[in-house]
Amino acid sequence: MAVVELLNLNNVVFRTYVFWTGVLVLKMFAMSALTAVKRFKTKTFANPEDLMSPKLKVKFDDPDVERVRRAHRNDLENILPFFIIGLLYTLTNPSTFLAVNLFRAVGISRIVHTLVYAVVVVPQPARALAFFVALGSTAYMALQVVAAAF
Amino acid sequence: MAVVELLNLNNVVFRTYVFWTGVLVLKMFAMSALTAVKRFKTKTFANPEDLMSPKLKVKFDDPDVERVRRAHRNDLENILPFFIIGLLYTLTNPSTFLAVNLFRAVGISRIVHTLVYAVVVVPQPARALAFFVALGSTAYMALQVVAAAF
Amino acid sequence: MAVVELLNLNNVVFRTYVFWTGVLVLKMFAMSALTAVKRFKTKTFANPEDLMSPKLKVKFDDPDVERVRRAHRNDLENILPFFIIGLLYTLTNPSTFLAVNLFRAVGISRIVHTLVYAVVVVPQPARALAFFVALGSTAYMALQVVAAAF
Repeated sequence: MAVVELLNLNNVVFRTYVFWTGVLVLKMFAMSALTAVKRFKTKTFANPEDLMSPKLKVKFDDPDVERVRRAHRNDLENILPFFIIGLLYTLTNPSTFLAVNLFRAVGISRIVHTLVYAVVVVPQPARALAFFVALGSTAYMALQVVAAAF
Repeated sequence: MAVVELLNLNNVVFRTYVFWTGVLVLKMFAMSALTAVKRFKTKTFANPEDLMSPKLKVKFDDPDVERVRRAHRNDLENILPFFIIGLLYTLTNPSTFLAVNLFRAVGISRIVHTLVYAVVVVPQPARALAFFVALGSTAYMALQVVAAAF
Repeated sequence: MAVVELLNLNNVVFRTYVFWTGVLVLKMFAMSALTAVKRFKTKTFANPEDLMSPKLKVKFDDPDVERVRRAHRNDLENILPFFIIGLLYTLTNPSTFLAVNLFRAVGISRIVHTLVYAVVVVPQPARALAFFVALGSTAYMALQVVAAAF
């Protein structure tokens, strides 16, 4: 298959990649919203111009805000590399079954990661498992991409 | 239209996407330069090997340096997802008028965000407005992308 | 050349881009592994649910852990923009010789950056040089991309 067929929504692999990429971008933006909610709830603002009352001072160490920020940073470290590797993996014309399930694995496990990290704290190894499913799937795709271009 | 016409600089939508993506990458790199300027001005270095004099110690809490770093991190959270969603949105063959103006909205509002956050501090809601214009435009594109692949 | 030939592994420019993008994603994931190793070695955990013993407390300021995290964040700031710009630069149909060597320069210098920053600390200007080779190469590509779309 050439790029004309590969980067086409009729190609189930590309379609699944596009779907989960869109969902994960929206999920990442939800982290910004959640950070804002926690900042207002705990009155934790990092900039003097954000303080809504002269009685408030800038604050950087609220545990609730910092937890969401750590989850968000973890997204940057793991989801953003997936976006490009998923696209390049699609261009290597992989097995449909494998590719579709790898994309689903990344999408679902990163949503679970957020839920157990930043929404309702679930004891380990919940977060570690979610983390490793997404990391393993993306790393496998990266290895396939490197092998295809070697 | 197929990918051959879509990912082509003769396609105004793709051309506008490419232009603003290039501009925003350069803008993000300007944050690194600005961080370096602030670090040298305030002698705030995070690593022992960066200290230029044995009298200096590592420092992590200079408010000017931290402000630029917060602006830079906000870029990572918002501009990097735009890069991939803008590309996938282009591949959904959107209305030229809408797509071109969404890309412009993201590009201009993220530049304004940097200016009012890290260059000249402007009272709120300047930064909030710039933030929401870019976030809203990118989220709209993400929704369109998800809908196209559903 | 049209996108059909450009986004094709027979195109040496695209092939080199794909190879180094895959390698750099794996390199970035190695930072997560290295952070975990340092966290366990120094018993520095940021979340209460990560503590393996009731005697431990959350800790945020271990210098070894923070050094790896700074290197990782620097990857986010520099490697992630390269992923998209390298792809768009490939789509501008650049000189093969120049493009291949720019991609190699980014790939190798970012690996060196990690080695001298987070694995074995090497005195400056080792890290600064590695940083500027990658930044300069990526910024050049971004300028070419902007010029092509202007």
